[in-house]
Amino acid sequence: MFDGHTALGFCMVLAIILFATKVIGLIFRRLGLPQVLGYIIAGILIGPAIFGDPLGEHGFALIGVQGKPYWCFLYLPDDSTVLSVFSKIGVLLLMFSTGLETNLKELKSTGLTAVLIALAGVFLPLVLGILISLPFGNIGLGTANMYRCVFIGTILTATSVAITVSVLKELGKINTKLGTTIVSAAIIDDVIGIVLLSVVTGIAKAGAGEDLTGFAWFKAQWWGTVIMIIAFFAVAVLAGWGFSKLFKWLDKRWPNTHRIPVFSLAVCFLYSWVAEEVFGVADITGAFFAGVVLSTVHRASAYTDKKVEVNTYAIFAPVFFANIGISSITFVGLNPSILLFAVLAVFMGLIGKIVGCGAVCKAFKYNLRESAIGGVGMMARGEVALIVTATVTSTALGPNALPPEFMIMTVLLILVSSILTPILLKVLYGREKPSAGDGTAVEPVTETVAEEPAQEGANQ
Amino acid sequence: MFDGHTALGFCMVLAIILFATKVIGLIFRRLGLPQVLGYIIAGILIGPAIFGDPLGEHGFALIGVQGKPYWCFLYLPDDSTVLSVFSKIGVLLLMFSTGLETNLKELKSTGLTAVLIALAGVFLPLVLGILISLPFGNIGLGTANMYRCVFIGTILTATSVAITVSVLKELGKINTKLGTTIVSAAIIDDVIGIVLLSVVTGIAKAGAGEDLTGFAWFKAQWWGTVIMIIAFFAVAVLAGWGFSKLFKWLDKRWPNTHRIPVFSLAVCFLYSWVAEEVFGVADITGAFFAGVVLSTVHRASAYTDKKVEVNTYAIFAPVFFANIGISSITFVGLNPSILLFAVLAVFMGLIGKIVGCGAVCKAFKYNLRESAIGGVGMMARGEVALIVTATVTSTALGPNALPPEFMIMTVLLILVSSILTPILLKVLYGREKPSAGDGTAVEPVTETVAEEPAQEGANQ
Repeated sequence: MFDGHTALGFCMVLAIILFATKVIGLIFRRLGLPQVLGYIIAGILIGPAIFGDPLGEHGFALIGVQGKPYWCFLYLPDDSTVLSVFSKIGVLLLMFSTGLETNLKELKSTGLTAVLIALAGVFLPLVLGILISLPFGNIGLGTANMYRCVFIGTILTATSVAITVSVLKELGKINTKLGTTIVSAAIIDDVIGIVLLSVVTGIAKAGAGEDLTGFAWFKAQWWGTVIMIIAFFAVAVLAGWGFSKLFKWLDKRWPNTHRIPVFSLAVCFLYSWVAEEVFGVADITGAFFAGVVLSTVHRASAYTDKKVEVNTYAIFAPVFFANIGISSITFVGLNPSILLFAVLAVFMGLIGKIVGCGAVCKAFKYNLRESAIGGVGMMARGEVALIVTATVTSTALGPNALPPEFMIMTVLLILVSSILTPILLKVLYGREKPSAGDGTAVEPVTETVAEEPAQEGANQ
Repeated sequence: MFDGHTALGFCMVLAIILFATKVIGLIFRRLGLPQVLGYIIAGILIGPAIFGDPLGEHGFALIGVQGKPYWCFLYLPDDSTVLSVFSKIGVLLLMFSTGLETNLKELKSTGLTAVLIALAGVFLPLVLGILISLPFGNIGLGTANMYRCVFIGTILTATSVAITVSVLKELGKINTKLGTTIVSAAIIDDVIGIVLLSVVTGIAKAGAGEDLTGFAWFKAQWWGTVIMIIAFFAVAVLAGWGFSKLFKWLDKRWPNTHRIPVFSLAVCFLYSWVAEEVFGVADITGAFFAGVVLSTVHRASAYTDKKVEVNTYAIFAPVFFANIGISSITFVGLNPSILLFAVLAVFMGLIGKIVGCGAVCKAFKYNLRESAIGGVGMMARGEVALIVTATVTSTALGPNALPPEFMIMTVLLILVSSILTPILLKVLYGREKPSAGDGTAVEPVTETVAEEPAQEGANQ
C-alpha cells in the first residue's frame, strides 16, 4: 500500500519493527526466554511468513516485498539496501560488543581449564554436526555438499555468554570457581568460533571462485585464505595498538566521555570493511576483533561507558533479528526431512556441549555432578549462533551457501537450549550439599532476570 | 573505487562521516563556533564540492556519486536511499529532541513578554526576507516566484535555542529575568517557525499540484492545507494524550528506564509519517509535535533520560549535517548575484531580530541597553535554520522549491550570527553597572563552552 523504501517510509518501517520487537521481546523476557527469540518472532509476525500466504492471493503482511501476491501495508523492494544496512550495522555492533566484553587481560588469568573446556565444546559439536549432516543428501547436505555440512557443525559451536551469565547469576553461582570457569570458557568459545567461521567461509568462498587472476586468485586458494586471515589478525593487532595509543592520548588531552564511543564505532566499521574488502575475512570477524582490541583501552572508566553506548546504538540489533523473521524465515519450503534433521542437529548440539565440556571438567578433578554442571552450563546458544547462521546462509557464499530453511534449526536450538539450561542447572545445583566447598558462601541470591544487564547488545 | 551502496560499503561511508564530523566538530567547538557548522564543513571536505572538480576529470572525493567524472573512494548512486534515510532519521530526531525541550507547563508561566518577543522576532525577519527577495528575479526569486521569497523569509525566522543558552550560560546571565525571557522566547519562536513552515510548504505544494481528484485535490487547496494542519494538530494532541497515558501505565507496571525511549522513538517516526502521508503536513512538524506531546510525560525522572537517549541516537544527526555538505553544497552554480543576495539576506535576518525583539523589550519597560541585549540574544541561528532550508529546497516541493544554492546563505547566517552574538552580548553586558538590579547576583561565572550540554542532539 505505502512505499517503505522512501526515506520517510522506511522510518515508518522502523517504527513498526521497534514497536513489535519491544512488545514481544518484553513478553519473552517475562517468560524467561531470550529476547532475541522474541525479536525473531516479532519479525515473523509483521513479515509475510505466516499471514502472507505467498501461494495464494489473500494473505497480508505489515511489511512485505514489492510485487508479491499478498497485500502489504508497507512494501520494500526485493533487494532493500536500507533494511540490509540496518541489519548489517546491527550484527556488526553485536559482534563489536561481544568483542568488547572479551577482556584479554582477564582471560589470561583464567588458565588452562577454561581453554580446554572451550576447545572441547567447539570440537565435539562441530564433528557431531558434520556427521549428522552426512546422511541428509536429500535436503542439500550430504557428502556432495561438504561445505554445508561443515557450516552446520560451525553453527552448533558458539555458546551464548549472555544466557550463561544470566542463568548462573540467577542461581547465585556466578562467582564460584566453576561459575567463572564456565563464563571464561564461553567467552573463549566465541573467539574460537569466530576464527573457525572465518576460515570455513573463506575456504567455501574460495571453492566457489573461478576464473580469477592475480590477488583475487591468491585470495581464492584455500592456503591464500589462511594466509590472509593470519595477515588480517596481524594488521588488526598492530593497528589496534595504534588506535589504543591514539585513544589514550585523546582521552588525556580532552577528557570527554562522549567522543571515544563515536570514534570506536568508526573503528568498528573500518575494521569490518577492511577485513572483508581487503583481506577477504568475514566482516563480523573484523567487528569482533575491533572490540577485542579496544577492550584493552580505558579498562577502568570508559569501558562501561563504551559498552552502554554501544548497547544504546542497539536500535540496530532488533532490526537484525526482526529482519531474520521478516526476510529469512519462510514455512513454504519446509518439509518433514528438514524438521527431522533440525531436531537431530539440535540434539547433537546439546549432547556435544554436555559431553565435550563435561569430560574436560571431569579430567580436571571435578566430581560427576560438577562436571555435568560444566557441560550443561556451556549448552545455551544465543545471538552468535544466529549471526553464524545468517553468515553461512548469505548469498555472498555462492552455491556453497546453506539454504535459508536451516534458520529454523538455529531458532529451535536457541529455544530448546535456553529452556533446558536453567531447568537442568537448577536440578543439578539442587543436589548440592548445603556445605558445598565451591569457594563461596552459599546464600540464596535471587535476583530477577528482569534486572540483569545480560543479553548484551539486544537489551533495550 | 569501492561501492558504498552495499550494506558493508555503507558502513564504511558511515565510518568516514563519523570520523570527519567528530574531528572537525571538535575543532569548531574549540573555536567557539557551532558544531553543526563543523559537520557541514566535514561533509564539504569528504564530498565532491571542493576537490571533486565536476567540470574537469581530475578531481577526487572520499565519498562521491556514481558515474561522475571524478575519482572517488566510495561511490553512492545518485539517489542513494540509504544516505537519505540516515539524514531523515537525523533531522526527525533533531526536531523530536527540540520538541522534547519545549516544556509546555514551563512555557505557560513565562508570560506575555516572551510570546510577543517571539512573535516580533518571527514577523520582522519574515517580512524583511520577503522584501529583500523581490528585486532578485535574476537568481530565481522575485515577484514571479513568490513562494520562494516566502521561503527565504521563513528560513530567517528560527532562533537557535542551543546557541542562545550556551552564550547566556557562559556570561552567567542565564538565570536573570531577561535571560529566562530570551530563552523562553527562543523556544516559542521554534513552535511558531515550525507551524509557519508547515503552512508555507503545504500551500506551495498545493500550488504545484494539478489534475488531482478527491482527497488529494482537497489537500491541494490552500484552505484544505490549513484545515489538514489544524486536523493534524487536533489528532496529534488527542493521540498524544493516549500515548502519555499508556507510557505512564507502562512505567508504573514495569519500571524500566530502557523501554520508554524506544517506544518514544517509534511514536516520533509514527507521528512524522502520519503527518506527511495522511495530513500532508511536513514530517519534521510531526516529529516536533511528538516531542512536545511526550515532553509532558514523566517530567521528573524519565525526561532527562529520554533526552540523553535521543541525543545518543545522534549518530544520525551528524549524517544529516554532513549530507548537506556532501550532497547539497556545490560551488559550481554560485555567482556574484547569489553571494550579494546572501550577504543582504543575512544582514536583514540579523537586523530583523535585533529591531523586532528589541522593540518589544523596550515596550515592556526594559531600558535601551537591556532591549539591545534582548534583540541580540535572539539573533543566533542554528540547526533549525538548516532544517528549514533543507525542507524548502527539497525536490518534493516541485517547481516551487528553492534552488539548493541558497544553502550557502543559511550557512553564512549561522556563521555570522554565532560569531557576532557572543561578542555583542559581552560588550552590552560589559557596560552594566556592577550593582545591576537584574534580580540575580552578578558573579563572574565562566563555565567553558566545552562543558555545556548545549547544541542539542548534535553534541556527541
